[in-house]
Amino acid sequence: MSKIITISREFGSGGRELGRCLAKKLGYAYYDKEIVQAIADKTKLSEEYVNSIVEKRPFSMFPIHTGSSFQMMTNPIDDQNQMIFREQCNILKDMAEKSDCVIVGRCADYILSEKQPLRVFVYADMDYKIKRCLGNQGEEEALNTKEIKKKIQSLDRQRSQYYMFFSGQKWGDKECYDLCINMSNINMDDAVAAIAALV
Amino acid sequence: MSKIITISREFGSGGRELGRCLAKKLGYAYYDKEIVQAIADKTKLSEEYVNSIVEKRPFSMFPIHTGSSFQMMTNPIDDQNQMIFREQCNILKDMAEKSDCVIVGRCADYILSEKQPLRVFVYADMDYKIKRCLGNQGEEEALNTKEIKKKIQSLDRQRSQYYMFFSGQKWGDKECYDLCINMSNINMDDAVAAIAALV
Repeated sequence: MSKIITISREFGSGGRELGRCLAKKLGYAYYDKEIVQAIADKTKLSEEYVNSIVEKRPFSMFPIHTGSSFQMMTNPIDDQNQMIFREQCNILKDMAEKSDCVIVGRCADYILSEKQPLRVFVYADMDYKIKRCLGNQGEEEALNTKEIKKKIQSLDRQRSQYYMFFSGQKWGDKECYDLCINMSNINMDDAVAAIAALV
Repeated sequence: MSKIITISREFGSGGRELGRCLAKKLGYAYYDKEIVQAIADKTKLSEEYVNSIVEKRPFSMFPIHTGSSFQMMTNPIDDQNQMIFREQCNILKDMAEKSDCVIVGRCADYILSEKQPLRVFVYADMDYKIKRCLGNQGEEEALNTKEIKKKIQSLDRQRSQYYMFFSGQKWGDKECYDLCINMSNINMDDAVAAIAALV
């Protein structure tokens, strides 16, 4: 069975970079934006549209539990979102079958739970995340500290809602992960080495 | 400056064993019950009495905030508990000065925060903790599953209250630590190697 590492991460914590470095160090495949591309290819929807949904927009419908059955009130947009989530599940499972891999985001820890991935959550203090985002942003963005903080909070809220909707679990709750690593005082190489020691 | 690793741990998670193995691997001093002994030596109180207080019994008094001043309603027992906590602070600071070390429990992450320790929280699923406790208990204990579960919950509640009282922080909240490690699916050697990679 392939070895799978899933990385969930707060926006600005460096989780994506950590995932990439880890995959490189271990010689594992790395999946991040590739997942959105693959969904777009399969569904014939635009990458931009898929990106606006995956990890961001939870459904508008309310799940109704009636005894053991599970019914939904849907609308066409929700149907499409559901279809995207189904594709996402299939694609993640295919990727996980193919080879050892590191998967960033996209509910992979939950979707692939049967394959017992090493589930990592990457987080950091707000000050660290703001500083990191300030350093990384392109000239065309030029957000100030206050705007970046707002962006971080908004994106993390979306991720949290999305994760809760699909998994029924609290995003970032340490009970859902094998390892939670706070990047505020830990450098990237050490974090990579620490996680690599667990596989 | 000495390197310090503090280990906070849920009862039954294997945090103490992890701390001991880590200290051995790194050649660091290891402090756990030694702290209670040292407090007993300094205060001339019995080790048993000190042990019943440290990490277990928060004060009975209620802190009263009046503007910027801070007053306490105390009683003799509380005075003694406060004295024990003061000794504990001094002893931990001395230990941390002397050499690189691993310190288990006793609010060390908070008390030594100025020395920037690597703050580790060790936890596990309830099933794992119960199984571990069942395997470790001596013949004279012989608690059943239900009793062990109750003991785990009760001890962790005490640790949580004690930590909150002194630090004002939530025990086990991942924001208070650099690394949180869930031992349910991770073996001891790998966990030790992962933490060792961070120092």
